[in-house]
Order: sequence, then structure tokens, then C-alpha cells
Amino acid sequence: MNNYLSMTKEELQKEFSCVKSDFKHLVTLHLSLDMSRGKPGFDQMNVSNRIFDLVGNDSGFKNRTGTDCRNYGGLDGLVELKDLFAQILDVNPDQVIVGGNSSLNMMFDTIAQAMTHGFGEEPWLKQGEIKFLCPVPGYDRHFAITEYFGIKMIPVECDENGPDMDMVEELVKDSAVKGIWCVPKYSNPSGITYSDEVVRRLAALKPAAKDFRIMWDNAYAIHDLYEDGDKLLNIYDECVKAGNQNLPIIFTSTSKITFPGAGVAAEAASPENVMLLKKRMSFQTIGPDKLNQLRHARAFENIDALKAHMKAHAEILRPKFEAVLEELSSQFEGNEIVNWSNPKGGYFICVSVLNGCAKRVVDLCAQVGLVLTPAGAPFPYGKDETDSIMRIAPSYPSVDEIKSASKVLCVAIKYACLEKLLKDLS
Amino acid sequence: MNNYLSMTKEELQKEFSCVKSDFKHLVTLHLSLDMSRGKPGFDQMNVSNRIFDLVGNDSGFKNRTGTDCRNYGGLDGLVELKDLFAQILDVNPDQVIVGGNSSLNMMFDTIAQAMTHGFGEEPWLKQGEIKFLCPVPGYDRHFAITEYFGIKMIPVECDENGPDMDMVEELVKDSAVKGIWCVPKYSNPSGITYSDEVVRRLAALKPAAKDFRIMWDNAYAIHDLYEDGDKLLNIYDECVKAGNQNLPIIFTSTSKITFPGAGVAAEAASPENVMLLKKRMSFQTIGPDKLNQLRHARAFENIDALKAHMKAHAEILRPKFEAVLEELSSQFEGNEIVNWSNPKGGYFICVSVLNGCAKRVVDLCAQVGLVLTPAGAPFPYGKDETDSIMRIAPSYPSVDEIKSASKVLCVAIKYACLEKLLKDLS
Repeated sequence: MNNYLSMTKEELQKEFSCVKSDFKHLVTLHLSLDMSRGKPGFDQMNVSNRIFDLVGNDSGFKNRTGTDCRNYGGLDGLVELKDLFAQILDVNPDQVIVGGNSSLNMMFDTIAQAMTHGFGEEPWLKQGEIKFLCPVPGYDRHFAITEYFGIKMIPVECDENGPDMDMVEELVKDSAVKGIWCVPKYSNPSGITYSDEVVRRLAALKPAAKDFRIMWDNAYAIHDLYEDGDKLLNIYDECVKAGNQNLPIIFTSTSKITFPGAGVAAEAASPENVMLLKKRMSFQTIGPDKLNQLRHARAFENIDALKAHMKAHAEILRPKFEAVLEELSSQFEGNEIVNWSNPKGGYFICVSVLNGCAKRVVDLCAQVGLVLTPAGAPFPYGKDETDSIMRIAPSYPSVDEIKSASKVLCVAIKYACLEKLLKDLS
Repeated sequence: MNNYLSMTKEELQKEFSCVKSDFKHLVTLHLSLDMSRGKPGFDQMNVSNRIFDLVGNDSGFKNRTGTDCRNYGGLDGLVELKDLFAQILDVNPDQVIVGGNSSLNMMFDTIAQAMTHGFGEEPWLKQGEIKFLCPVPGYDRHFAITEYFGIKMIPVECDENGPDMDMVEELVKDSAVKGIWCVPKYSNPSGITYSDEVVRRLAALKPAAKDFRIMWDNAYAIHDLYEDGDKLLNIYDECVKAGNQNLPIIFTSTSKITFPGAGVAAEAASPENVMLLKKRMSFQTIGPDKLNQLRHARAFENIDALKAHMKAHAEILRPKFEAVLEELSSQFEGNEIVNWSNPKGGYFICVSVLNGCAKRVVDLCAQVGLVLTPAGAPFPYGKDETDSIMRIAPSYPSVDEIKSASKVLCVAIKYACLEKLLKDLS
């Protein structure tokens, strides 16, 4: 395979002719493909369909403590699910609040609470300009929440170990810096898992702001593609060791375990944080949908049942990821215009191309009928200064569709990069 | 029946001896009864159990537009439920946002949004002290939300037609007054339904605050106990006629139609309000639990199916209400120490006793094993200046339990009032 970075102008021109011809051919195929969002596919959701038989007239409506889950009550969720999420997150069940169908909603509400009522200090809204650290590339919906509340976002570079901790440690000396967004395992979109050292340094932070919080979105806690999945250090334990137990607020959900639209979300934190969160919730609602919680409790009576379930997901997802990775390898081995992640779990492959080319790749793909996440989305304010990062979400389409989509992606990458290289030479 | 208010001291003393003896007897029964919250009973919930068979492997997961309700998406709910709630609330389906399991949560989030982002004007949090009008007696959880956000509450007296509109019209001249809480039909706890004139005057308000909103909690929109239920004028239509379409934000839910903990809630408003609400929601969540919405859509394919369902509820609830009302009538006909409501629907009977006696009645009931809503709860800050109002919730216990509870209630009312009258005479 040729490395575009060591080709002559003539070689590049010749290659561009071929690629343009490939691209023209793709246009004629009238494809309709989507790798834009981390949506599970039908086959994955079907793995969970048995859940519907677990609550109903034959199976009853009471949980193990005898609560009729149809009626009001139970602000922080069923004990069975507190136990299950406690095992997923490796915390004490008392630290867990089990909610509705959306962990994003729990994150939004947590930030909203900090804005209007604070975390033990003045409400954030009354503290003048406040700031949040945003490891990049990161999850667009996290950044959207902070932007909605007018919190200034500061991007922090990541490498394969997580955020640049020298930078984080420096930035938290500013008392206006109130928190950091983290997807610590199989990060969205980079696929990396924070190293033990990064977790320990995060846990040991000494932020100037007493109400600094680590928003720890452990969305992919048990979402391994392979037996030897990444291991993430327990942030809460490390925080306790460092005398910082109020730092982390931890989130997860079953959106990518059972159903994206009808799973169960949970939040975990220190006793003091849990007390503050539950106080707000006591004004906000009488309680979550306990019947859907009961379905989940009965589907996963213990962590082993859950792990077996996740293996079935991995069987479905792995070929989809590998289809993308194989095409990237076969097209770009040794070609320095592009790099990509090889995640062992999660929902995304991160592709970085020559600076200034990511938007063009996304546009070219759109022209051929392949929808990708907008370039820039994984950055605060949607601005990737380098215009080089793309998020690829291979979960939703079928393997055949992914094979087609990957071909399109590779042609578009070549097209955009060749165009750029030739422009720079002219 | 004797009227305590026209009895001599000696007659009162004699009566008090009898009542104390009755009370002592009740203590020996070791009762355990609860008429404190508007919780539907088992028999009512059982009416809805068929809902569980309507979504599952046999019945599929797609709604009429072909959406797989298991997956992400659909911020404002399924079209079927927009249609259904539009019929319940007599508005256009486009005006309806269908949410999760709690209308209280939608109200909280709506107020929270006003605090941090405002309704077309400056955020309420940035406008200094703001105020809300609270028709009394009213719903404790409404008042709790306003209190949580530090909004000053101004009680407004109600009669059988609704809030004192002369007072409301006067108070809204203050631009710090940002809204009013209303349970316009079968009001919690008074059971009254706002008269056409009250609805028209509310709709025609000219508040000094451009961001004044009517929080219209139509929780009991179709919750009639009798064929000839109360009729509530359409607030939205009246507001449109008055050029005030942005005034009302309307709420309802199926909490007392299907399941209190696992129903579906909805919010309706003007196109401009809906746009503002949906904008916030787009940051807060990817979408509500569409599978539970689908269950409801299939259970109630049209408004007639829903009305038939509500008749089954009425059959169960009516004897419970009548058991309380019959005992009150038989014990207190012509006795001016007590008045009570005769609601044609909703979930509450409101009992008013001699000033200064409500707390004592609730305490006495507790001593005999009957839990009532705390006296004062239906007032802002929990303060009933007259200490005379009690909320009775007869939906949860069985008819037999309610008969026992009603006897306890009547004895406790006599006890407290006799004690008071004798004290005043001494």
C-alpha cells in the first residue's frame, strides 16, 4: 500500500483520478447507510425481548420486598436494581439511585441542580462565569448540556491513557472550574479506557472549587467486545483513599444492555452527594417506573446472568466492528494520512485523518448516501480546530451494510486527503 | 342530630364523655388504616393489567408510523399518544409533548427551565424575588416545587367556583408574580371544578409579567365518579380568544388511569411554549420510554375505549367515596362544627372543621391507627392559618376499611371540636 505522504505530485494526481472514478461509481449505487449514532441494532435488541414476559398477569407485580411496582412510591428505585447496578459499578447499593430510562436525563438534572442549588456551596448560577473541563474528543451530548447552561468549556487533550492530567491538575487551580466530563471506559468516541494512573490522579485532584465534580459517565462499563476487555480502576474507591469521596458522580444505564429507549438508568455517588440528589428528586417526582425496573430485576437476577447477556451482544457487535477495521487496514496499512482506534469494547471507532479533511470526508460520504456523525461533534461547541477527527458508529447497520459503508468511508478519506495534499502542492 | 354550636356547656360536657368513651374503644381495636394519599387501590390497578399483553414478542414493537419503540429517538412521544392526550385535553396533537411516567416531573422541569432559561424573558433566577399565586387549599407537591426554587408563594382563597379572581387580577399587576398553580377539575383537595367565568377570567388576565404562566394541572380531566361529571371550560381556547395563547401550560397523566408508578404523562401548550419546552428537552434526553407509550396506545385506541375504562374505575371508587360521605352525613347532619365537599370526581374529599381543630383531628386519628394527610399540607409552606382544613383520600383502602376509617374520623372530629368548644368556654 502506498503512503500518500511520500508520493510525488504526479503519483498523487494519478491516484486521485482512480479515487474519483471509484467515487463516481459509488454515487451510482444510491446507497442509504447510517453510521452516525451509537444505536444498537434489531438483532441486539432481540436478545432482550424475553424481558416482556417477566412482568404481567402470570408473573405478578411485586418485587422481593413485596412492593406492588404498579403503584406510587420508591423514590430511588427497587432494591434488586440497586444491587445490580452496585455490582456493575462496584459500589455499595446504598450509594445507588435507580431512575428512569435515560442516564443523560440524570446527568442533565444533576447539572441543573448544581446550577440552581449548588453542591454544598453557592448555586453555580450565582458564582459568575464557571467552567468545565472537556476531554476531547468526547461525547457531544455532554458538551451540549454544559453549553445549554452557559458553562464555559475548556477542551483537554486525551491520549490512549485518558485526559492530559498535567493540564487537568493545572486547570483545577481555577476555582471557576467546577467539573470534568469523563467517559472513562471505551470512551466515546476514542474507544480508550483511562489508565490506572489517570484514574488515581483524577481521584487525587485538589480543585480550588470545593464544589468541583467529576461527571463519570461509565456508559460502557460491561460492554466488552472481547473476553479480555479493558479494566477500569474504581474511581470511587480511589477518591475515598484520597479523601475526595464527594468528587465523583457516576452514571450508567441499560440502554445498551436491554433497550435504548426503554432501559433503566442509574447514578451513584458518596452518601453526601446521594442525599443532595435525593432531596432534589423528592420535589421532582414521586418515583421512577418500577415495573420496568422489575422487568430488569427479573431478567438479570445476578451479575453472571448479565455478563452472559453481554456476551451475546458482543457476538453480534464484534463482526460489525471488525468489518470496519478490516477495510481500514486493507486500504490504509502504512498510509500515514489516517489513523484509527482498535477498541476492545464500546460503540465507536475513532478515525483521524489529515488536518483539515474530516468535514470534507463527512460531506463526501453524505453525497454517496452514508450518514456519519458531523465532523466537530466530539468537541466543545462542535469545533474541532484540527478538523481531523471522525466518529464511526458501526452498531446499527447489518454487517453487509457496514462492509459497503466502510468501502465508502475509505474512498471518501482518500478523496479528501488527496484533494488536500494536491491543493497544498499547488 | 345535635348542633354543638347551640349546645350548653353541660350538654357539651356530657357529649364529650360519650365521645371520649368511643375514642377509648377505638384505641383497643389496634387499627391500621391510611387515607393520606391519592393512591389507586389494587382493584383499580387490576383493571389495567391487560396492558402487559399488548407489547411483547407476539404483538411486536412498532407503532403505526413504523417506529421500533425499543430503540432511541422520538423526543416528544408517539403520535398515537399525542392524539389520545389531545382528545383528553381538547387541544391539537401538535401541541402535546408525551413524556415519562410523571406529570409532576414535567411540572418541575418546566419551572426549572423558567428559573434557568426563562420563558421568552430573562431567566426567573435573574429577576430578583419572584412570586407565584397558590389557590388554597391546593396540592402540596405543587407548593413544594415553588418552595424548592425559592419562589415566594401567595395564597389565594377559593370558593366553589375556583380562585378568587378579583384577588388574582389585582395580584398579577405585580410583575414579580410569574404564575399560578391550578388543579381546575376536581381540585386537589377541595373537589371543586373551576366555573366557566373563572376559566374565562384566568384566560383574559393581563399580567404585568410577560412571562407569567398558568400551570394548569388537569390531573383529573376524565376522572368522573358519576355519569354527570363536572364540565371544565377549555383554557387553551379561551386564552386564544383573549390573545393570551402563551399563558397556559397544561399537564395530565395516566397515573390514575393505568398505573400510578408506570403511566404516561403529557404536557400541552402553545406552539411557542412547546418549542421552548422541546428545545430544553433536546438537551435533557434522547426520548421517553416509547414501549410504555406503545402499551398505552394499544390499550386505548380511541377516546371511547378510554372512557369505558374510566367507568370501571368509577364503579370501584364511587362506593369508597360514598362510604365516607354517608358516615359524615349520618354523624354530622345539622352539626355546624364541620363541612365537607361532595365531589363528582377526582381523588379527595375535603373536610373543614372548627378553626384550630384540624391538626388535633389528624393527631387523634393517628393515635387510633388512621393516617391522614398532615393538616396544613394543602397550603403554601404547610401553614393553614385557620387550622381547619383536612384532605381525605379514600381511593386506596377497601370499602370495609374506609367504613372503619370514617367512623374513626368522625369520632376524632367530635373529640377535637368538643375539646376546643369546652376550652373556649372555660
